[in-house]
Amino acid sequence: MGTVREIETPEVGLGWVDELKDLLGDSQVVTHASVREEFGGDRWHAAALPDVVVHAESRDDVSATLRFAHENEIPVTTRGAGVGYVGGCVPVKGGILLSVRKMDRILEVNPGDGVAVVEPGVILNDLQEAARELGWYYPPDPASLKECSVGGTIATNAGGPRCVKYGVTRHYILGLEVVLPNGEILETGGRCHKNKTGLDLIGMFVGSEGLLGVVTKATLRLIPHPEARAMLTATFPDFEVAATAVQSILNSGWQPSGLEITDGFTLQAARDYLGPEMLPDGEAHLIVELDGRKETVLQDLAQLKKQVENLDAVSVQEARDKEACEAIWTLRREFSYSLRATGLIKLNEDIVVPRSKLVDLVKFARKLQEDTGIPIACFGHAGDGNIHTNLMVKDYDTDAEARAKADEALDVLFHWIIENDGQITGEHGVGLAKKRWFSDAVSPVSAEVHRQLKSTLDPKGILNPGKFIE
Amino acid sequence: MGTVREIETPEVGLGWVDELKDLLGDSQVVTHASVREEFGGDRWHAAALPDVVVHAESRDDVSATLRFAHENEIPVTTRGAGVGYVGGCVPVKGGILLSVRKMDRILEVNPGDGVAVVEPGVILNDLQEAARELGWYYPPDPASLKECSVGGTIATNAGGPRCVKYGVTRHYILGLEVVLPNGEILETGGRCHKNKTGLDLIGMFVGSEGLLGVVTKATLRLIPHPEARAMLTATFPDFEVAATAVQSILNSGWQPSGLEITDGFTLQAARDYLGPEMLPDGEAHLIVELDGRKETVLQDLAQLKKQVENLDAVSVQEARDKEACEAIWTLRREFSYSLRATGLIKLNEDIVVPRSKLVDLVKFARKLQEDTGIPIACFGHAGDGNIHTNLMVKDYDTDAEARAKADEALDVLFHWIIENDGQITGEHGVGLAKKRWFSDAVSPVSAEVHRQLKSTLDPKGILNPGKFIE
Repeated sequence: MGTVREIETPEVGLGWVDELKDLLGDSQVVTHASVREEFGGDRWHAAALPDVVVHAESRDDVSATLRFAHENEIPVTTRGAGVGYVGGCVPVKGGILLSVRKMDRILEVNPGDGVAVVEPGVILNDLQEAARELGWYYPPDPASLKECSVGGTIATNAGGPRCVKYGVTRHYILGLEVVLPNGEILETGGRCHKNKTGLDLIGMFVGSEGLLGVVTKATLRLIPHPEARAMLTATFPDFEVAATAVQSILNSGWQPSGLEITDGFTLQAARDYLGPEMLPDGEAHLIVELDGRKETVLQDLAQLKKQVENLDAVSVQEARDKEACEAIWTLRREFSYSLRATGLIKLNEDIVVPRSKLVDLVKFARKLQEDTGIPIACFGHAGDGNIHTNLMVKDYDTDAEARAKADEALDVLFHWIIENDGQITGEHGVGLAKKRWFSDAVSPVSAEVHRQLKSTLDPKGILNPGKFIE
Repeated sequence: MGTVREIETPEVGLGWVDELKDLLGDSQVVTHASVREEFGGDRWHAAALPDVVVHAESRDDVSATLRFAHENEIPVTTRGAGVGYVGGCVPVKGGILLSVRKMDRILEVNPGDGVAVVEPGVILNDLQEAARELGWYYPPDPASLKECSVGGTIATNAGGPRCVKYGVTRHYILGLEVVLPNGEILETGGRCHKNKTGLDLIGMFVGSEGLLGVVTKATLRLIPHPEARAMLTATFPDFEVAATAVQSILNSGWQPSGLEITDGFTLQAARDYLGPEMLPDGEAHLIVELDGRKETVLQDLAQLKKQVENLDAVSVQEARDKEACEAIWTLRREFSYSLRATGLIKLNEDIVVPRSKLVDLVKFARKLQEDTGIPIACFGHAGDGNIHTNLMVKDYDTDAEARAKADEALDVLFHWIIENDGQITGEHGVGLAKKRWFSDAVSPVSAEVHRQLKSTLDPKGILNPGKFIE
């Protein structure tokens, strides 16, 4: 987490805290300053103190809390594991920080129906492992999977490297139990894999960043776990050649389960950090993962290798078993650590461009780096154009001038994105980090529909106030 | 289409029709009785006369029509190709039947971005072929794909046999241009493959059956077309053994691109119609399709064949090339024709059950057949539990007593579905056909949220009135 900086903690008459304690019990309603501080932020660069932290242990706790907050018009900000990247769970208007982290039961993993039923506080990796043990698979896999909660992935419609084949979180939510802002309990969907009964209420809550309701139970779609995976890595003389290779692979009918690209700046940082021998020559790096049957996926890999070698690659290496694949994903994670090792603070922007603009984006990033002197590292999900564009800033949290300069560079970046048919966030959410650009990123009619939906479901505006709908 | 029966055509003062003609031009605003009748229904068993048919040719036509209808509180029912199965586009309250069938341009097929941009009247198969020519794939494939419009598939969130691997229409909509009930134009999403900017407005319109807005342009996600497909068919001694095979296949990590099951009743009709030699012995039939690389998919198929042979199959046959695969899909379509050849009217209910209840569903159907004397044929998408349950009824459209009896049987069926965690519609929509069971199929809180959303976006209730939200 960045330095905790208090954005705003309005004075609130706190007589209501005692009422809330009476309602839920002392142990679930915590006012210690240290706890309020602990729950005041996520991995982004802002935090705010809630007046009270409520540890919900059940749907009924959540419902009672919201009914109380609704009657008394008290802000409520829901928090899962608190590892988001955009300040989405920062309680900027104070009030109640509603933690669902203790609601962490995996209620069911059922291969017969192809579903899992979980509470929102379950850690994503625990769910994936529980499914994996039975031969089943829950594909969404953000980098934070070992520490993020399923509820958080629902709030942000989280993605990850395997989205390119398997789609985002929304595609795996079959049913939700949601407590509405007035405390009523909505059950929508169920455990069927197809459902056209009425409007898509599930879609309304997935990705809604805690603005419309609080998920207290989710029924997730599981799919058969692919029997085997195999990977290759390749380096290219420059990013443009690598991007051309991405398109060529897709044009040939490959459906990779991962397709990750890394730019030269990031590679240089990795060579500095890991030693130059860890990475073959080349100014761009590609990872391609295939999955399928054990007996044939290696033949497919060999065919793909030939194709990539003919795409002007500098080097191509295969990973033919689980360990070798894991080594590649580890290397990929090292790219992030390498950037961290520069001592600079990484402003990780999960922007998206139409895939044909990957090269334009990286060229633009190079120019922005020249103009501002801020190093910029680009890497991420090439197949879906979701490139994490990282501005590397010295003393962002402590030096007001450095911060202002970086924020100005972000402003230039986001406006370029919007002008180039891109999206300001692909998988992290808007939160506080991108709130400033939200109104430019959507049309006035869209903004108005957002406001209408918010005021319909949350007429008193108590849920996660101060975020992208005001 | 079933016999046209007028449900309701309220008297409306028709001075407004002349005003509408002034607004749009005579050629686009048609009042001939024959045209009004032609556009009064779909493939279901009800129709109603609109007061006027408007042939929209552009977004501006749609916007002008809705603005006019909104000001004058005139019902508007949107219609694509009119081949739905549930009466979703029947203008039960009269007013304007807004046909978008002439808005049928494929504006762009762009492999570089992995998108296609289309108007709503484009026939689905035309889009698929345009993508296929460039090596790309748009997976949603309802049986009606050669005659249904893309707009219709968006309105119903259409599925088809390949959903089991590739998901439903929602997963392929990246951007929408929607005319809202007051004539305002909402643009939401875009051409990026990932997007977490704000609420999921796209999801709100996909599957909304024309109740919230009129889609005038859609940006669709294309994926690489798999290089090759291969299939097998198998027969089993009974449905239970076949259903066990389905689960065994999935438990082994296969991700079939089709997994279709057919019951003994349907097979008997097929043998009667096609000749007994066309189908091997067995009382249940399974189709499994794999897709992947040309060089390896046949090896995968051989492995799968061995597995299925060991699952107590009576017979297993491979289809190793495109023609053989097409022959299997043709046979599959013949199952429908066979039922039609009985001379009975097929009430095709696209119900869904949790996959573990496939056998329970078919046993229940057998019992319902015994109790009512109505033959019931079950076949469909085994992988996602979406089994088309067809009640075969004599003179449904002309014999009131037969109709009442069949409707009573449907009532028993749908209540069994609801009690067994099923869904009353998986891919056809609610329309008129399932309207009667909608309020039982969703919770009171869900029904209330539906009403709130409808009245927020369409406060005057002009869009497709008389359907599942009233």
